Amino acid sequence: MRVAVIGVGLTKFGEHWDTSFSRLFVEAGARAIEDAGIDGGDIDAIYVGNMSGGRFIDQEHISALIADHAGLNPVSSTRVEAACASGGLALRSAAMAILSGMHDIVVAGGVEKMTDVLTERTTQTLATAADQEWEAFLGMTFPGLYAVIARRHMYEFGTTREQLAMVSVKNHGNAIHNPYAQFHRKITVEDVLNSAMVADPLRLLDCSPITDGAACVILASEEKAKEFTDSPVYITGSGQASSTISLHDRERITVIDSTVNAGKEAYKRANVEAKDIQVAEVHDAFTIGEILAIEGLGFVELGRGGPATEEGITQIGGKIPVNTSGGLKAKGHPVGATGVAQAVEIVLQLRGEAEARQVDADIGLTHNVGGSGGTAVVHIFEKG
Amino acid sequence: MRVAVIGVGLTKFGEHWDTSFSRLFVEAGARAIEDAGIDGGDIDAIYVGNMSGGRFIDQEHISALIADHAGLNPVSSTRVEAACASGGLALRSAAMAILSGMHDIVVAGGVEKMTDVLTERTTQTLATAADQEWEAFLGMTFPGLYAVIARRHMYEFGTTREQLAMVSVKNHGNAIHNPYAQFHRKITVEDVLNSAMVADPLRLLDCSPITDGAACVILASEEKAKEFTDSPVYITGSGQASSTISLHDRERITVIDSTVNAGKEAYKRANVEAKDIQVAEVHDAFTIGEILAIEGLGFVELGRGGPATEEGITQIGGKIPVNTSGGLKAKGHPVGATGVAQAVEIVLQLRGEAEARQVDADIGLTHNVGGSGGTAVVHIFEKG
Repeated sequence: MRVAVIGVGLTKFGEHWDTSFSRLFVEAGARAIEDAGIDGGDIDAIYVGNMSGGRFIDQEHISALIADHAGLNPVSSTRVEAACASGGLALRSAAMAILSGMHDIVVAGGVEKMTDVLTERTTQTLATAADQEWEAFLGMTFPGLYAVIARRHMYEFGTTREQLAMVSVKNHGNAIHNPYAQFHRKITVEDVLNSAMVADPLRLLDCSPITDGAACVILASEEKAKEFTDSPVYITGSGQASSTISLHDRERITVIDSTVNAGKEAYKRANVEAKDIQVAEVHDAFTIGEILAIEGLGFVELGRGGPATEEGITQIGGKIPVNTSGGLKAKGHPVGATGVAQAVEIVLQLRGEAEARQVDADIGLTHNVGGSGGTAVVHIFEKG
Repeated sequence: MRVAVIGVGLTKFGEHWDTSFSRLFVEAGARAIEDAGIDGGDIDAIYVGNMSGGRFIDQEHISALIADHAGLNPVSSTRVEAACASGGLALRSAAMAILSGMHDIVVAGGVEKMTDVLTERTTQTLATAADQEWEAFLGMTFPGLYAVIARRHMYEFGTTREQLAMVSVKNHGNAIHNPYAQFHRKITVEDVLNSAMVADPLRLLDCSPITDGAACVILASEEKAKEFTDSPVYITGSGQASSTISLHDRERITVIDSTVNAGKEAYKRANVEAKDIQVAEVHDAFTIGEILAIEGLGFVELGRGGPATEEGITQIGGKIPVNTSGGLKAKGHPVGATGVAQAVEIVLQLRGEAEARQVDADIGLTHNVGGSGGTAVVHIFEKG
C-alpha cells in the first residue's frame, strides 16, 4: 500500500482550561492544512479518533460537531473508536478511504478533552476500555491492569523496577525537546522510584498523564499528493488486530497478542521486517507498555525489553530510537489523539524536521494500543 | 461502486432483559454468517455501529468486546459512531474497506442496548447527539427538536397533524408482517392523535421507541461473492454528508441538507436518479422525519411529503413503498443498529424474501440520519 501524508498538525498537549473540545481539533486541523498547503475546500472526508466524548464532555456525534465547527460542511465526517487506539484507527480508516478510490484528500485526526470532569470520573471513563462486566465493575482500573502485567513480566523475565523507570526517564528526556509536549521536566530513576505508589509496582512517574489535545494528519492519494509536495512521507503498511478485552482470558499476559499480530500485518503490507524500522512511537501509557511494545513488535526478543532499555538502544542515538516525541508518558496522552500524534512525530522525523530530537531514519513505525491490548494498530511510514 | 451483500441477520427488536449487549451482536452476526454460507474464519474485518456504549452500558471499546465474544480474535474490529447514523457509517466503512482491496469479506453490524439505564438517562444520552453546549445543556431533547421542525413544516407547507399520524399508521401496519419488529399492533390516526403529548405537535405515537437490538450484513468483493452465491445484492452507491449539528445554525430547518447531499452523492455513484428507487427504508425516528426524508431524497417535491403520504404513494403497493419493515417507528430504533437493519430489509426485499410485506423492486435505498441531521448516510442497493 502507498498513501501519502502531506500535512501534519498538533495542539500543545496539556491542561487546556480556556478552550473547547472542538476548538482543539480545529486548531490542530488548521495547522495540518497550512502545513500541507491545501485549502479547506480540497478536503473530501474527515475521520476522527475519539475515545469518549460521551462521558468526558457529554457529547456523542463529535464527527458532525467537528465538521461543523471547522467550517467544512457538507464534507463527510466519521468518528472511529477503540479506546486509546482510536487515533490509530482514524489513520487506518482514512488510508483505506483513499485506497478505496472514493476520496482523494482525507483528514485523519484525533482529539480528547479529559480535564473537564472530576478525576474519579476520568479514571472510571478510562476503565470503560476494559471489560465492564469482568474487570471495571469489580474495581479494576488501568494502572491496576498494567501493574499485574508488570509484576508478571518481572517474575518471568527478571525485568527490574529500575528498568521500568528508565523508560520514563528516557521519554521525559526526549519531551524536553518537543515544544508540544505536556511535560518539560527532566527526571531521574530515583524520582520515579520515590514518586507516589499508584498500583504496585507502578508509581506515579510510570503512568501517562491526563491530557487535553488534538492531532491531525492530511492524507492523499499518491497521484494527488504530487500536486502539493515533491517529498511526501508514505504510509506503506497498516495492521490492526483484536485480542481478548479481559486480561484474565489470555493464555499469557506478558505478550500483547494484538501488538504481535498488528505488527505482522503491517510489516507484510509494507514488505519490511522489524529490523528495518529506524524510529518508532509506541504505546507507553505505562512504562511496562513500552517494554511490551518493543518485544511484541520484534525490536528485541521476548523478555529482553528491560535490559535493552537499560543498554540504551531505544534512546535517541541508539539502534532503534523509541518515543522521540516523549511518548504518552511525557508528551501526554489525550487518548483519542494519541495514535495520530504518533504519526505526526514519525512524519517530522522522516522529513528531518524534528529539531533537537532528530534521528537518522528513512523508515518509521507507530504502535497504538486500546485498553490492555484488546486492540492494537501499527503503521509503517517511509520517506518518499 | 459495486460491493456484494452476501448475508444478513437481525435479532428481534424490543426490550431484552435476559441478554447482553455483546450477545445481541453475536446473535445477529451468527444469523448473517449462516445466511451467507460462510465460516467465521472467512471474516477479515468487523465494523460496528454503536452510538453510546459508554453511557448506556458503561462500556467503550465495544469493537474489541464484540470480536472477542464472537470468537473472532485476532480479526480487526472497529466501532464507528455518528449518533443514530452509526449503523449507516458502519456499512459505508465496511464497503470502503472492501473497495480498498485490503479486505475481501467484512461484517458491517450495529448494536445498541438502551433499556439497561433509567429512562431519564436514556433521554439525556440521546440528547448527546445534539449540540451539548447550545441545545442539550439548555434542556432541548430530540422530541423537542423534531417538534420545532414539524411545527415549521406545518406552517410553511400546510402539512397536517393527520398526515404526520398517517406515517405512523402505515409503519405500524407494515411492522405487523415483520417478525423482528418491536411492535405488532395496528393503530389508527385517532390512536396517534389521542396518544400522550410528548412535544407539541408530536405525540407518543409519533416517536420511535427505546429498543435493544442488533443487525449485521456480510459484505464481500464482487469476485469473492461468487464463491458463495449466484445472486448477491450489490451496494452500488454510497453517500455521506454533514450539516450543522445545531438546528438554530441552519438557514432553513424544513430541509435536512445532509440528506439532500448524501442522496446526491449516492445517486451519482450508483448512476441512478430518485425516480429509479423502488423501495426505501428512511429515518422515521419521528413521523416528521419520514416526510423530511422523502422530500430530501427527491421522491416527492419539497412540501409535498404530507399530501403524498395521505395519497398512499409510500404504502406497500404504492409508487415508492417506504419503511416496509415498519421503520424506526414500529420495527424499533436501537440507534446504532438502525442503519444496518435498514440494509437488511432492503436486501430481503430485493431477494424476494420479505414475505407478507414483499414489494416488486430491483433497486432500493436506505437513509440513516444522525441527530437532527448533523449527519446523513444514504446507500443504493441493486439486484445482481
